[in-house]
Amino acid sequence: MALTDRVKQILSWYSSDNPGTQTNLVRLLNHGALAGTGKLVILPVDQGFEHGPVRSFAPNPEANDPDYHFQLAIDAGCNAYAAPLGFLEAGAAKFAGQIPLILKLNNSDSLGKPEHPISAITGSVEDALRLGCVGIGYTIYPGSGARNQMYEDLRELTIEAKRKGLVVIVWSYARGSMSKAGETGIDVIAYASHIAAELGAHVVKVKPPTAHIEQDEARKMYEKHNIPIATLPDRIRHVIQSTFNGKRVVIFSGGEAKGADAVLAEVRELAQGGSFGSIMGRNAFQRPRAEGLELLQNVIRIYKDASSAKPAR
Amino acid sequence: MALTDRVKQILSWYSSDNPGTQTNLVRLLNHGALAGTGKLVILPVDQGFEHGPVRSFAPNPEANDPDYHFQLAIDAGCNAYAAPLGFLEAGAAKFAGQIPLILKLNNSDSLGKPEHPISAITGSVEDALRLGCVGIGYTIYPGSGARNQMYEDLRELTIEAKRKGLVVIVWSYARGSMSKAGETGIDVIAYASHIAAELGAHVVKVKPPTAHIEQDEARKMYEKHNIPIATLPDRIRHVIQSTFNGKRVVIFSGGEAKGADAVLAEVRELAQGGSFGSIMGRNAFQRPRAEGLELLQNVIRIYKDASSAKPAR
Amino acid sequence: MALTDRVKQILSWYSSDNPGTQTNLVRLLNHGALAGTGKLVILPVDQGFEHGPVRSFAPNPEANDPDYHFQLAIDAGCNAYAAPLGFLEAGAAKFAGQIPLILKLNNSDSLGKPEHPISAITGSVEDALRLGCVGIGYTIYPGSGARNQMYEDLRELTIEAKRKGLVVIVWSYARGSMSKAGETGIDVIAYASHIAAELGAHVVKVKPPTAHIEQDEARKMYEKHNIPIATLPDRIRHVIQSTFNGKRVVIFSGGEAKGADAVLAEVRELAQGGSFGSIMGRNAFQRPRAEGLELLQNVIRIYKDASSAKPAR
Amino acid sequence: MALTDRVKQILSWYSSDNPGTQTNLVRLLNHGALAGTGKLVILPVDQGFEHGPVRSFAPNPEANDPDYHFQLAIDAGCNAYAAPLGFLEAGAAKFAGQIPLILKLNNSDSLGKPEHPISAITGSVEDALRLGCVGIGYTIYPGSGARNQMYEDLRELTIEAKRKGLVVIVWSYARGSMSKAGETGIDVIAYASHIAAELGAHVVKVKPPTAHIEQDEARKMYEKHNIPIATLPDRIRHVIQSTFNGKRVVIFSGGEAKGADAVLAEVRELAQGGSFGSIMGRNAFQRPRAEGLELLQNVIRIYKDASSAKPAR
Amino acid sequence: MALTDRVKQILSWYSSDNPGTQTNLVRLLNHGALAGTGKLVILPVDQGFEHGPVRSFAPNPEANDPDYHFQLAIDAGCNAYAAPLGFLEAGAAKFAGQIPLILKLNNSDSLGKPEHPISAITGSVEDALRLGCVGIGYTIYPGSGARNQMYEDLRELTIEAKRKGLVVIVWSYARGSMSKAGETGIDVIAYASHIAAELGAHVVKVKPPTAHIEQDEARKMYEKHNIPIATLPDRIRHVIQSTFNGKRVVIFSGGEAKGADAVLAEVRELAQGGSFGSIMGRNAFQRPRAEGLELLQNVIRIYKDASSAKPAR
Repeated sequence: MALTDRVKQILSWYSSDNPGTQTNLVRLLNHGALAGTGKLVILPVDQGFEHGPVRSFAPNPEANDPDYHFQLAIDAGCNAYAAPLGFLEAGAAKFAGQIPLILKLNNSDSLGKPEHPISAITGSVEDALRLGCVGIGYTIYPGSGARNQMYEDLRELTIEAKRKGLVVIVWSYARGSMSKAGETGIDVIAYASHIAAELGAHVVKVKPPTAHIEQDEARKMYEKHNIPIATLPDRIRHVIQSTFNGKRVVIFSGGEAKGADAVLAEVRELAQGGSFGSIMGRNAFQRPRAEGLELLQNVIRIYKDASSAKPAR
Repeated sequence: MALTDRVKQILSWYSSDNPGTQTNLVRLLNHGALAGTGKLVILPVDQGFEHGPVRSFAPNPEANDPDYHFQLAIDAGCNAYAAPLGFLEAGAAKFAGQIPLILKLNNSDSLGKPEHPISAITGSVEDALRLGCVGIGYTIYPGSGARNQMYEDLRELTIEAKRKGLVVIVWSYARGSMSKAGETGIDVIAYASHIAAELGAHVVKVKPPTAHIEQDEARKMYEKHNIPIATLPDRIRHVIQSTFNGKRVVIFSGGEAKGADAVLAEVRELAQGGSFGSIMGRNAFQRPRAEGLELLQNVIRIYKDASSAKPAR
Repeated sequence: MALTDRVKQILSWYSSDNPGTQTNLVRLLNHGALAGTGKLVILPVDQGFEHGPVRSFAPNPEANDPDYHFQLAIDAGCNAYAAPLGFLEAGAAKFAGQIPLILKLNNSDSLGKPEHPISAITGSVEDALRLGCVGIGYTIYPGSGARNQMYEDLRELTIEAKRKGLVVIVWSYARGSMSKAGETGIDVIAYASHIAAELGAHVVKVKPPTAHIEQDEARKMYEKHNIPIATLPDRIRHVIQSTFNGKRVVIFSGGEAKGADAVLAEVRELAQGGSFGSIMGRNAFQRPRAEGLELLQNVIRIYKDASSAKPAR
Repeated sequence: MALTDRVKQILSWYSSDNPGTQTNLVRLLNHGALAGTGKLVILPVDQGFEHGPVRSFAPNPEANDPDYHFQLAIDAGCNAYAAPLGFLEAGAAKFAGQIPLILKLNNSDSLGKPEHPISAITGSVEDALRLGCVGIGYTIYPGSGARNQMYEDLRELTIEAKRKGLVVIVWSYARGSMSKAGETGIDVIAYASHIAAELGAHVVKVKPPTAHIEQDEARKMYEKHNIPIATLPDRIRHVIQSTFNGKRVVIFSGGEAKGADAVLAEVRELAQGGSFGSIMGRNAFQRPRAEGLELLQNVIRIYKDASSAKPAR
Repeated sequence: MALTDRVKQILSWYSSDNPGTQTNLVRLLNHGALAGTGKLVILPVDQGFEHGPVRSFAPNPEANDPDYHFQLAIDAGCNAYAAPLGFLEAGAAKFAGQIPLILKLNNSDSLGKPEHPISAITGSVEDALRLGCVGIGYTIYPGSGARNQMYEDLRELTIEAKRKGLVVIVWSYARGSMSKAGETGIDVIAYASHIAAELGAHVVKVKPPTAHIEQDEARKMYEKHNIPIATLPDRIRHVIQSTFNGKRVVIFSGGEAKGADAVLAEVRELAQGGSFGSIMGRNAFQRPRAEGLELLQNVIRIYKDASSAKPAR
C-alpha cells in the first residue's frame, strides 16, 4: 500500500537509518488492521519462557501450540507477533509472509535468579534474518547492577541489526536499585523510555506509569515546573515527550491478565494520551480464542478511532 | 528408506530448519530397530567423565573400552550413540557410517565443583562435523546461578550447528535454587523442557517427573485447572503438551541403575504417556553385554509396540 | 577556509596522525564563530541519559526534541555538537553537513549504580562513521576500581577511530578512591588530564580545578617548587602545562547550571589561563532558547577576544 | 624407519585424527632409543618457571643454559623434549630436526597464587608450529574451582592443534577440593587420566598412584568388585584400563628428585604395570650431566626390555 | 654499520626469531654511543602516567614537553626511548628515524588501585608499528593475584609482535603476595627475570637485587650450594645466569632519583656484574637538562668501558 502522511512523518524521524530498516519499519506500520494509521498493536508471547508453561497456558491449553499465536495475531489484525527463538522457529516457515515477526533476543526464566536482574541472550540477528523477521526485541532493566552488560550486549545487537536492515524494539523495565512502586513510577518510566531511545531503539516498550515519583531530584522538577501527571493520559503524554519529544515510537504493555473491560478502559486512556499503540500478550492468549480475538480487535479499534480522531502531529 | 507418514509429520514441525538439519533428523529417526516409527532409543555414555571410570565401568569392565559402546548401540538397534569428545574420537573412524553419533559438547566431573552448577564446554561443532556426527548434545541446568552463561553458550553452539545442518539435543536438568525433590517435580520438568525448546532444541531430554510441585504459583494452576498429574503417563503427557504441544521431540532418561524389570515397567509408562523415546546409559552398559543388549532390545520393543498401537497424532 | 597559523601550529602537535584524523581536526577547528582561532566551544547533550529527561529538560521543554540541540549549536556558532547515539541518530540526516558531530560512546544513567564507577559503552566507531561524525567522545573515571576496563575499552575504540580518521575526545573525571573535594583538586585534575593525553586523546575535557590538593606526595611538589595555583587562571595554566606542555587541546566544562554572569566570569578566567575552550551543556539548553543562544555567543566572544589578544604560542 | 606392528597398533587407536597428527605421533614414537617399541621417555623442563631458577638449577648450574636440555635429551635417546616458550625458543633453531619438541602451553609460578589452582596460558599453537614442535602440552587440575576455564581453554587449543596436525599431551594433576593424599589416590589418578582422554588428549601424563582412595563412592566399587590395587603395577594397570582400556598412551612422571636406585626401582614397577613410558625432569637434570645421562639411559633400557619381553597387546 | 662479533653472538641467541625481529634487535644494539658493544642504555618516561605530572616533572618543568625526551635520548646517545602511547605519538613524526622507539603497552596510575596489582593495556602492536617503533614494552607483576591475566595478555601481544618483527621488552616487577623487602630480594629478582624470559621476552628489565632472600625453599639452595650473593656484582651475575645462563639480554633500572655519584657508583657495580645495560628515567629527566645529559653520558661511558675491558663471553 502507498504510504500515508502519518507513516511518512514517522519515517522522517528515522531518516538516519538505511533503506533496509526503513523498509521493515514500513512493513510493521503497514500491516494489519492499523496499517497506515501510525498505530501499532503487537502480540508478544514469551510468557512460557518467563513464567513457565503451566502458569502461561493452563487457562487456555491450545496456546501451548506455537501455531496458535501466529494464527491469533493474523486473525486479529495485529501489526506483528513477537516471541523467543523456539516459538518462532516452530511456525516461521508455515506462516511465512503472513505476519511481521519480531525475534525476542533475550529472556529470563523464573526457576533461577542471577545475582543482578539480567536476561540471557537466547537468539541472534542471524536467527532473525533466517526466520524472515522485520525486527529484533531486547529487554533492558535500567536500575539493575548488571545494566552495563545489558546496554553493551544491546549495542552489539543493535549495530548488527541496523547494518542488516532490521528494526530494533526495546522493552525497558526498570528494576533493581529502587522500590517496587518505583518500577512503574512516572519519573522512572519516562527515564527508562528515554534511555531506550538514546541506546538507539526504533520502538520503545514500557509499562503504563503510575503517579508515583521515585527520585527526589526528579520530584523537585515535577513540582517546580507543574508538570501534569495526575491522570494516565497526562502521564502517557509526558513519557512520549520525554522520549525525543514524540519522535520515537513508544508503545505500552497491558500488564497482568484482567477483565476485558478493565483492559479496554486502560487502552482508551493510553490512546487518549497519544500512545503509539499496545503490546498485549497474556490478556490475549489466556482467554478462549474467540474472546482473545475479540479483545484484540477491540483494542485495535480504539487505536484506529484515536488515529482518525486526531490529525497527525 | 522412504519416509513414513509419522516421520514426515515430525519433520513438518522443523520446517524452518535447513535441508542439512532435516537430513540429519531423518538419519536419526530412520536408523535402527525403531526406524520410521518416530520413536527413539539412544545410548549415552558420559558417565566416565561425570562420575569417574571406576564408578561407571567396574560392574562391567569391558565397558572401559570405547569400542564397546559403539558396538552395543549398533547391535541393540539404537537410533544413536552419544558421548563426549574422547570416547567418540576413539571409535568414530572404525565404526564410520554404522550408527548415528551425537557429540556431547559439555561435561562436568565429580572431582571439583564450580561455584554454581555448570558444565565445561569440552567439544565443538567443528569436532562434531569432523567425526561425522548427526547432532550435538548440550546440558543446561535451569535454576543454576550460572544459567545465563549456559543459555548463551548454547545459543552460540546452536546457531553454528543449525547453520551447518546438525541436530541439537538439549539435556535439561533443573538444579540450583530449588529443593532436591523439586529437581524432578512435574512443574519443574515441564518448565525445563519448555525452556530447552524455546532455546531452539530439536530434541529435548528430561528426567521422568514425579507428582511433586515446586513452585506455589504453578501449584495454583494445577489445582485451578484440574490438570491430571497423578500417574506417570499423565505427567509425561503434560510435559509433552508443555513442550510446544507435542511439536518437539521429548525423550526421557532412565536414571540410576536398577533391576531390568523396574526399568521396563517405567519405560512402559513413558510409552503410554506418549514419550518419543528413551535415552538409557548406565542401565545398558553396567550389565554384562548379553543382559544389557537384551534390556535395550526390550525397551525398543516397547516403543515399537506403542508406535503401532496408536495412530500417528 | 585556509589554515591560520594557529591552526597549523595545533596540527603540528598531531603530526603522527593520519590525514583523515588531521582533516577532521581541521573540520572541528575551522567551524563556527571561532573558526581559525584555535579555540573551541562545544555543545554536549548527554544529560537526558545521565540524569533523566525531567531533570534535564523540564526547565525548557523544547529541549526534549533532538532537533533543538542541532539547531542551537548551529545558530550559536559552536564548533561541534556532542551527544549519545539516539540523540544524534534522530537528527544526523536532517542536519547533515551543518555542524561537526561528536558521538558520545559511553554513558551512565542515574537509576542504577554498577559496583565501581564506570559508564556503559553505548555506541561504536561504526556508528560515528555512518552518522558523519568528526570524532568520538569517551568518559574515563581515573580513580575508579574499574579504571583498567575503561582504559582498555578506550584503547580499542581509539585504535579503530584513529585508523578510520576520527578525532578522539576524552572526558576525564576522577572519582572513586578519593575525597569529593579531591575530584576537582588541582593535582587530580592535572593528573586526570595527563592520563587522557597519554591514552591517546586528541582533545581532553576536564572540570575547572580548585586549589584543593588531594595527594600528599603531590602537595610536597607544589610546595617545594612554588607552583602557583592560587587563582583559577594559575590552575588552568598548570593543567595545560601538565598536559604535554600545551601540546594537546584541553577544554573545560561549565558545570552545574548557574546565573549567566557567573558562567561568563568563570569563562573569562578559563580564557585568561589559556584554556583552549569550553564545553557547555546545561547552562546552554536549560534556558529559554534566546537566553541560551545569547549565553553561548557571549562565551564564544570571550574566547575570540582571548585568541586575538595574545599571540599564538 | 618403517612402522613396527606395535606402532601400527597404537596408530589404529587414533584413526579419527588427520594424517598430520598421525605423522607427528609417528615422529614421537619413532625417535630415539625407544623408536618403534611403543614406549616413550620424555624430558620435560618447566621447573625454572614452576619453582624458580635457583631451586631448579642450583644443583647443576649448567642446566641454566637452555641448550643443555636439548643436548641431554638428544644424547640420552629420549623420544622428545618438552618446555615452555622461552626455553624452546632459545634452542629450536640451533637444534632443529634433532629431537621432537613439545611446547608446554600453560605454566604456573610459585611467587603468586591465583584464587583457584590454574596455570596461565603462556604459548600458542602458532608458537608450536613456528618452532617446529610435534605437539603441545597443557596442564589441567581436575578438582580445582577453575576447572571449567582450564577445560575450555584446552578445548580451544586442542581444536586448533588437531586441525593443524599436532599431538596433544595433557598433564592431569588433580588438586583443589580434595585431601593432599587424595591428589595421588588411585581413584583420583584413574579419574584424572580418564578425564584427560575424554577431553581429547592423545597422550596423558599422570603421577604414579598410591593405594589411597579419596572418594567414598569409588571405594565401594573397588571393594565390591575386588579390583586389585595393592601393588604399584596393579595400580598402573588399573589406570591404563581406566583410560579407554589401554587405547590411549598414558605415561607417568618421576616426581621429586631422589636417588638413582629409587628412581629405577619405581620405573621397573611402572613398566611391569604396562606403563607406556616415563616423563622425567628433575631426576635427570639436577644431577651432573654424566649421571643424569646414565639415569635416563637406564630408564630407557627398562622400557626397552619391557617392550620386548611382552608381546604387543 | 657492520655487525660486531658481540652483536653477532647476541643475535645467535635469538635465532628462532624471524628476520624482522632480528633486524629490530640490531637497530636497538647498533644505535647511539654504545652501538656494537652489546650494551644498552634506554631512556624510559612513563612516570607522568604512573605518578602524575607534578611528581614527575615539577623538578624540571621542561620535561612536561614530550619533545624534550626524544631530544634528550638522541643527544645523550641512548640506544632507545620508551614511553606510553600519548608521549610517543606527540613526537614520533617529528623525530622519525632519529632514535629507536619502544611503545610501553601497559600502564598504571596512582589515583586508583585495582583489586590486584595489574596495569591497564593502553596501546597495541598496531600502534607500535604505525609509530615506527622497534619494539614493545610490557610490565608484569609476578606474585600478583592477577598474574594469569597479565601473562596471558602478554602472550597475545608477544605472538603478534613477533609475527610482525618487533622486539619484546618485559619489565618484571614482583609484588603482591610477598614482603616489601621481598620485591627486590635476590631470589625473587632472579625468578622474576627467569619468568620474563620463559614468557618469550627478548629483553628483560628488573630492579637491582638486594641480598634479602624471600622464599625459604630458595634460601636452602643458596646456602647448600654456596651461591655468592654478598655483593651487588655477585647478585647481578646470579640474575643473569638465572636468565638462560646469559642468553637473554637483562638490563637493570636506576630506581628513585638520587645523587649523580650514587647513580654512577651503582651503575659501575651493575657493569662489573655483567649487566647488559641500564634503563634510567627519573635520574635523567628530573635534573636540569645539562646535568641529566651529563649523567646519561657518564652511565654510557661506564658500559662502554666495561664492554671493551672484558672480552665477549
